[in-house]
Amino acid sequence: MTDLDPDEFRRLGHAVVDWIAGYRAGLGDLPVRPEVEPGWVRAQLPAALPEEPGGLEALLGEVDRVVVPASTHWQHPGFFGYFPANASLHSLLGDMLSGGLGVQGMLWSTSPAATEVEQVLLDGFADALGLDPAFTFAGGGGGSIQDSASSAALVALLAALHRGSPDWRESGVDGTERVYVTAETHSSLAKAVRVAGLGAKALRVVDPAPGSLAMSPTALAAAMKADIAAGLRPVLVCPTVGTTGTGAIDPVREVATVAREHGTWVHVDAAWAGVAAVCPEFRWVVDGTELVDSFCTDAHKWLLTAFDASLLWVRDADALPGALSITPEYLRNAASESGAVVDYRDWQVPLGRRFRALKLWAVVQGLGLRGLREHVRGHVALAADLTEWVREDPAFELAAPPSLALVCLRVVTGRGADADDSATRTVLERVNASGTALLTHTVVDGRYVIRVAIGSVATGPEHVGALWAQLRSAAEDVEGGNRCA
Amino acid sequence: MTDLDPDEFRRLGHAVVDWIAGYRAGLGDLPVRPEVEPGWVRAQLPAALPEEPGGLEALLGEVDRVVVPASTHWQHPGFFGYFPANASLHSLLGDMLSGGLGVQGMLWSTSPAATEVEQVLLDGFADALGLDPAFTFAGGGGGSIQDSASSAALVALLAALHRGSPDWRESGVDGTERVYVTAETHSSLAKAVRVAGLGAKALRVVDPAPGSLAMSPTALAAAMKADIAAGLRPVLVCPTVGTTGTGAIDPVREVATVAREHGTWVHVDAAWAGVAAVCPEFRWVVDGTELVDSFCTDAHKWLLTAFDASLLWVRDADALPGALSITPEYLRNAASESGAVVDYRDWQVPLGRRFRALKLWAVVQGLGLRGLREHVRGHVALAADLTEWVREDPAFELAAPPSLALVCLRVVTGRGADADDSATRTVLERVNASGTALLTHTVVDGRYVIRVAIGSVATGPEHVGALWAQLRSAAEDVEGGNRCA
Repeated sequence: MTDLDPDEFRRLGHAVVDWIAGYRAGLGDLPVRPEVEPGWVRAQLPAALPEEPGGLEALLGEVDRVVVPASTHWQHPGFFGYFPANASLHSLLGDMLSGGLGVQGMLWSTSPAATEVEQVLLDGFADALGLDPAFTFAGGGGGSIQDSASSAALVALLAALHRGSPDWRESGVDGTERVYVTAETHSSLAKAVRVAGLGAKALRVVDPAPGSLAMSPTALAAAMKADIAAGLRPVLVCPTVGTTGTGAIDPVREVATVAREHGTWVHVDAAWAGVAAVCPEFRWVVDGTELVDSFCTDAHKWLLTAFDASLLWVRDADALPGALSITPEYLRNAASESGAVVDYRDWQVPLGRRFRALKLWAVVQGLGLRGLREHVRGHVALAADLTEWVREDPAFELAAPPSLALVCLRVVTGRGADADDSATRTVLERVNASGTALLTHTVVDGRYVIRVAIGSVATGPEHVGALWAQLRSAAEDVEGGNRCA
Repeated sequence: MTDLDPDEFRRLGHAVVDWIAGYRAGLGDLPVRPEVEPGWVRAQLPAALPEEPGGLEALLGEVDRVVVPASTHWQHPGFFGYFPANASLHSLLGDMLSGGLGVQGMLWSTSPAATEVEQVLLDGFADALGLDPAFTFAGGGGGSIQDSASSAALVALLAALHRGSPDWRESGVDGTERVYVTAETHSSLAKAVRVAGLGAKALRVVDPAPGSLAMSPTALAAAMKADIAAGLRPVLVCPTVGTTGTGAIDPVREVATVAREHGTWVHVDAAWAGVAAVCPEFRWVVDGTELVDSFCTDAHKWLLTAFDASLLWVRDADALPGALSITPEYLRNAASESGAVVDYRDWQVPLGRRFRALKLWAVVQGLGLRGLREHVRGHVALAADLTEWVREDPAFELAAPPSLALVCLRVVTGRGADADDSATRTVLERVNASGTALLTHTVVDGRYVIRVAIGSVATGPEHVGALWAQLRSAAEDVEGGNRCA
């Protein structure tokens, strides 16, 4: 037998678990961002694969020597970059079980449990987030776990193309399709449009409402009307709830109302913010979604579930299989032909799929909905504290309205509003160079902006407090430098 | 803190490791295929998510009570269906580390180690499989880990579309594109063609060589010539090394020679069979690939690495980023702009990505190349035994030439060659109903065929011997039934 003996796996598995426990316990002492140059990792490792077995201990040694010092530590309590990618230890337990079972959930018949546990959980989360019951399997729709919001957007677009043209599967796209987004929409929508063969020309960037970053329903209506008059076909409108740059919220209800007049598919990208609906006080993030065709939010960002676990619901359970199903002989089986089961391969591009529902199950089992709410609430409260500190400090200003647990800020210098962005850039670079926190940036109205995305599973008040002290100190140094210059 | 305390994770993680060890040790005693009806799992579980935490022990109890009895056990030694989906315990150790680190490898800068370890391993495997050095990063190409061969085929097609038309990113597809496959090509190619907006009309099913299931280079040349004369544009040719139905091998060298005359992208789908090239005696599976543009083989099928780990190499390291890259402000960083790093997000559709290289590393570290060769060789030898038994037994016939570790067979009845396929169907159903083995089928030349795909990580001579005894016994029963009828 090639594989490890189960008893040997027991011993080595315990060692790996202990390594992970030690890594997570010591994470706060590591620099968030590695100090390595391109090529350093490659230079550390032998080019040729080993001819003989080397043992797990040697592998753990290499992970300590090469991988840890060259990793950006996304689970670090000082990680405030991008959006969080919660890989809670709860979810790891479920993911380990998934690996242990090693089943393929492509068809119901290739693992009924993998399929139906996913259905139960997605129905359960639809209810927990306050989504329209039409998004549950009982309601005629249904949910699935996608690898990412990017893939979710792509399959939603494919379903929209299929619904928009019964001839699409045979003839492909015809060049008249149009997709409506804003300048703040995630780049995955532009990527989906490209992948689907529509070309960038199909992307209509709708103007925001005046003084806002959110899509203007009026501008959307005008753009759709003009396109239709020109013989073009609106196929998808994508409002975002919580844009990546600043957390802006497009008005889903109004946008959907406009889109529905033309029978256009509405896909809501709530990748980061949607999970906040687990708290009744943030349920407004799903407002208007009873009017849309698909809704996506990532359990792997802020809902404690290790990547990949993007939750996608559609109002019509036949929409994705209609667009994506192709059945060769070797996949035919009685259960599929009975029509009584869901074959999740038809809800996604890849054929194979892991039992991803187990890690989501482990999270909700380990914490309960109550624990999920505390997690989200805690970070929103910390963001509110930070917002307050920024408002009260003349050295800083908010660069966009705070949104849930995302705060966008800029430095205000004695010379004015940091006209060339240099003070804001320098402050970000100083904080990142410290190794105790990681921030990333965006650009709003042409201005460089620091994003503080609070949401790492380990982040508590002390870490946000320490970050604020660092920001102030860096801003003082920059201002002092300016004064001396 | 919301998450498990590391010490608590240590305790629970050990329990999960022990559960997995017990599951794998007892796997041979479980029925391979579950005896559940659609809806059984859903009916077992509460519809609502728990409000309060429930603990890991309760989750393991549910897994034992509901998941295990309703799972098809892909790691079972009697699993001979589809293709194997090796999730070796070695690979699990690496996957656990990946979850523990919880990094996002979308950009080099978001985790240099995740990127560069993948580069080192893919270069190393290119060498171990005997691929042209042009497929390594040192040679100007490079490899990446995709989620599946389906996604690999899709991104190869997108790269081909981009290379074929500099205007594709802006204008999309134009309806003149053509893609060349055979009737035996995996359905993922048809799916990729659909996803990319080409429509089924773009798919040219090239005839096989007479008396074979493999693509005829002559027929390919004629089809391409006719299409070009009609103003159409060949964009991709996909020869398969080891088709899903029967393991047929398209003549890559001859096919590529034809395609190159027209500058058409050649993508080799060797999802199952390609890894056999790790053995010098099977290196012929990569013959001719020095003439192609991309090559894909799945480490998660027969190379011991838990799903998902599809290895895709391209000859031109700029091909996938050229087709797929879109850079919004919030992803800009100095390392990417230096051009000195690989950002793997540009090699795939999803933005996020796990540190998948760790599970592949754990496999090669745990077994060495020597162990990988023994694994593959052992299964090929078992298939040779089975082939011999089939040849010598008048109750069976080979339904296609055996290919590596895949044997396709049919029942021969006293009444002749099982004219209506009923005996062959019945034998498959009886074996599957026994619970000790799982077989799946295909259709060859309109005839129902039993596929025996040997390759589960736990399958040894005793399991193939037992399967053969079962097949013979079932065939005798069927023949006896026919005689009495």
